[in-house]
Amino acid sequence: MSAPAALGGVLAWLQQMLRPATGLPFPAVAHGTIALGTDAGIGSEAFQLDVTVDGVTIVGGDAAGVFYGCQALLQLLPPAIYRRAAVAGVSWTVPVCRVDDAPRFAWRGAMLDVARHFLPKHDVLRFLDLMAAHRLNTLHWHLTDDQGWRLEIKRYPRLTEIGAWRRESQVGAARDAPGDGRPHGGFYTQDDVREIVAYAAERFITVVPEIESPGHVQAALAAYPELGVTRQPQEVWTRWGISSNVLDISSSTVDFFRNVLDEVLELFPSRWIGVGGDECPQDQWRADPLIGERLAGLGLTSVEELPSWFVRRLDDHLTAAGRRVFGWDEILEGDLAPGTTVASWRGMAGAVAAARRGYDVVACPDDLVYLDYRQSESPEEPIPVAIPLTVRDVYAFDPVPPSLTAAEARHVLGGQANIWTEHADSPRTIDYLVFPRLCAVAEALWSTADRDFDNFWNRLQTHLARLDALGVEYRRSDGPQPWQRRPGVPGRPDTREQRAAHIARLVANIQV
Amino acid sequence: MSAPAALGGVLAWLQQMLRPATGLPFPAVAHGTIALGTDAGIGSEAFQLDVTVDGVTIVGGDAAGVFYGCQALLQLLPPAIYRRAAVAGVSWTVPVCRVDDAPRFAWRGAMLDVARHFLPKHDVLRFLDLMAAHRLNTLHWHLTDDQGWRLEIKRYPRLTEIGAWRRESQVGAARDAPGDGRPHGGFYTQDDVREIVAYAAERFITVVPEIESPGHVQAALAAYPELGVTRQPQEVWTRWGISSNVLDISSSTVDFFRNVLDEVLELFPSRWIGVGGDECPQDQWRADPLIGERLAGLGLTSVEELPSWFVRRLDDHLTAAGRRVFGWDEILEGDLAPGTTVASWRGMAGAVAAARRGYDVVACPDDLVYLDYRQSESPEEPIPVAIPLTVRDVYAFDPVPPSLTAAEARHVLGGQANIWTEHADSPRTIDYLVFPRLCAVAEALWSTADRDFDNFWNRLQTHLARLDALGVEYRRSDGPQPWQRRPGVPGRPDTREQRAAHIARLVANIQV
Repeated sequence: MSAPAALGGVLAWLQQMLRPATGLPFPAVAHGTIALGTDAGIGSEAFQLDVTVDGVTIVGGDAAGVFYGCQALLQLLPPAIYRRAAVAGVSWTVPVCRVDDAPRFAWRGAMLDVARHFLPKHDVLRFLDLMAAHRLNTLHWHLTDDQGWRLEIKRYPRLTEIGAWRRESQVGAARDAPGDGRPHGGFYTQDDVREIVAYAAERFITVVPEIESPGHVQAALAAYPELGVTRQPQEVWTRWGISSNVLDISSSTVDFFRNVLDEVLELFPSRWIGVGGDECPQDQWRADPLIGERLAGLGLTSVEELPSWFVRRLDDHLTAAGRRVFGWDEILEGDLAPGTTVASWRGMAGAVAAARRGYDVVACPDDLVYLDYRQSESPEEPIPVAIPLTVRDVYAFDPVPPSLTAAEARHVLGGQANIWTEHADSPRTIDYLVFPRLCAVAEALWSTADRDFDNFWNRLQTHLARLDALGVEYRRSDGPQPWQRRPGVPGRPDTREQRAAHIARLVANIQV
Repeated sequence: MSAPAALGGVLAWLQQMLRPATGLPFPAVAHGTIALGTDAGIGSEAFQLDVTVDGVTIVGGDAAGVFYGCQALLQLLPPAIYRRAAVAGVSWTVPVCRVDDAPRFAWRGAMLDVARHFLPKHDVLRFLDLMAAHRLNTLHWHLTDDQGWRLEIKRYPRLTEIGAWRRESQVGAARDAPGDGRPHGGFYTQDDVREIVAYAAERFITVVPEIESPGHVQAALAAYPELGVTRQPQEVWTRWGISSNVLDISSSTVDFFRNVLDEVLELFPSRWIGVGGDECPQDQWRADPLIGERLAGLGLTSVEELPSWFVRRLDDHLTAAGRRVFGWDEILEGDLAPGTTVASWRGMAGAVAAARRGYDVVACPDDLVYLDYRQSESPEEPIPVAIPLTVRDVYAFDPVPPSLTAAEARHVLGGQANIWTEHADSPRTIDYLVFPRLCAVAEALWSTADRDFDNFWNRLQTHLARLDALGVEYRRSDGPQPWQRRPGVPGRPDTREQRAAHIARLVANIQV
């Protein structure tokens, strides 16, 4: 094996992937050679993989391209290459071939919600490995919400002392669903975060953190009640949905979140920093008898402007630090700073609106790539919510709305699958929800080829053997295994028509 | 770094441990060299670790000794060495020193129950890494029980199709405890097992599988009712405790288990094969109107002899294959084949009896090393069962009963901690129960030095920083974190006096 010094990390990673299963004397390979190199002319993240009788050559447009070429090499080997200890009786040969490949989009992501259910550090690292194997390069990490605050902030220790756990969790999606009576919690220390960010970077994955505001903040309010409109003590939320408890819009809450973001900026080198901005109830603001004066004091005329006023203050702070706001498409309802990037989740309306207004877009329409949504019409799907999204449905995902002009379409950075975890209370359930649908998302974001589902489905069968070797408890095509079911726990299924009508109402006031 | 070819696996492992956190150019080290070698004169598993200004030399009595020397080297480095990605700002230096070390016992084990709660493959691999870091060398893997059958057996596919999952699980330890209504299951394919066994072997850990019989078999009976006394259909058990449903003692059930063991022998190279033999209720046998004739047909005179008759048949089969039976100390109540190894769990009575009768012994007395037992008298311990076992209590564990002569004591191979998982329904709970008590067990099994708890406790504080880096959610000395509690879920605590009296009754008929 050989590589220039700049590719030492990729080479070391490749050796760590090849040696355990093959058991080949380290660091040699049995026959031929593996040579890694770069050629900037090929383009970022692109690669050329050459397998001849003499060996393997991987040339990338950059180190990321070399890494993806190595991932392609692993896919050419028998699936057992993904096992982590010596496998006997396998011929570790690669067919002579030539692969020229490059990704369609620069943002190929997954959003992982660790606020509703905490995922231990080692499981996050495993998730990053699985992302990398699918050539995804962006982890949108949803770290705070009504139900939990997962990130250690040195200046505000109560955020994790109080905010990192809740008394119990709602079971199922029914409005009258019972609680389970079981505390849930956990958080990442700043050392944990540095490790996760570095581990991701070594796999060419950018971690985009998200600190929600000015709604989805009840865990923070439990820790620091003075941040809230009511200033009343309350607990970390034990229900799913959208808490009515929101931030008081004031210079002191802005200061608090700026201070939080200062620690976030130290931990995350990402150009984008998520600030939320979605689903912010306004009833508490309206109930304030002094709301008129307060709005006037901020130079505003209506309550609806408050969320974007708040996000804009954080935006100023992030922009001054050389970063950019990443927010949900609700922020399109207000005034946006230049350079803001919008996550279009309520269908593609936000993607169209943002691109036309000149903002960058990441497409993650709920009706295509929300991987918490039920995987079929079967009543055996565990806690079935929203609409059925089969592998075929997800594979049809295209981040670029057809109504955009070519110039507008250039604002579409790519897309991501969103993994909300209200009903995924263990890593095993995440496996079930995410795979193999994430494989379809990954191909939709990478490949420029015409989409042929039957062809994909055939290739997926080979890929499932890789997931088996990796120990991924994916959903089988015939439905959940008996132990993947949740009999008697109601979900909240919609028809496509119901969901589409709901989204249409939600996006009615997006400014195009 | 350098090592003879025979140590290539250890060298590769060491490089995989050193490179991620240090980020040092691969495979070099920053200053000096690391040289590995063997010298059979030092003794099996022993090592000499020399750190000078020029570099590090590790000489082991064998490859295992070199491996433990490498583990010692990791302990000399800052705790962040256990992180899996580049850590900045750490000086990766090792103090100049000389360590000569060797283990006190050859069997340093942990028993992991994956029958009551299934542990996914990647979590088993993580557990093996944690064992190796504590220089434990034997995983006693409890694969089958009333509540689940976790091992794919090609000849009897229903063992996993039916036996690998149950309809629900009892919540808590009360006799009238409710069920949770949630299916639970999972199993290891034979490929998974081969990977786990190989992964363990690369870390010098022997996996001793356990297939329970003739009691603790209800999951097998659910799959194949004809194996049972009643031959009635039944479900995989959803309660904790000891099911009254046991194997019919006949040539056909012996044949079935011999066939199962034939596949087990293919998968596990271990000299020892666990067959259970514990806690076998005899009511169903007594209820058989033809029991007298059946006993006579087997050449037996009492029902009490049936379990050992059954185990003895499996013993013949295993002995013919060059293996040895590993069974719980109940097998001492009957006739044992030469070479049988006994796990003494009901206190140390079994250890004394077995050693005096010339059988090898592994000590795992419940009142010292059952890590499912509650960790303090605090009512905040989650589902507190049995007696409190603090770190101090566990650290007092000595596998050799003081009443043995030196010759008898040579039959004590060592000891192990037992991790039963009725009340550990996630890997996070296993972390809580196991650590840091397993650290105390590991030192008790390794070290020949005088036991000084205060000294151990001080060193443990440094070691906890390593567990933090590894992401182990251990029990803190001030008790469970809020989210590690299970309020309102009754355990079944005993006093030490109650437990001792119970065990004394149980072992009254052990033949010394």
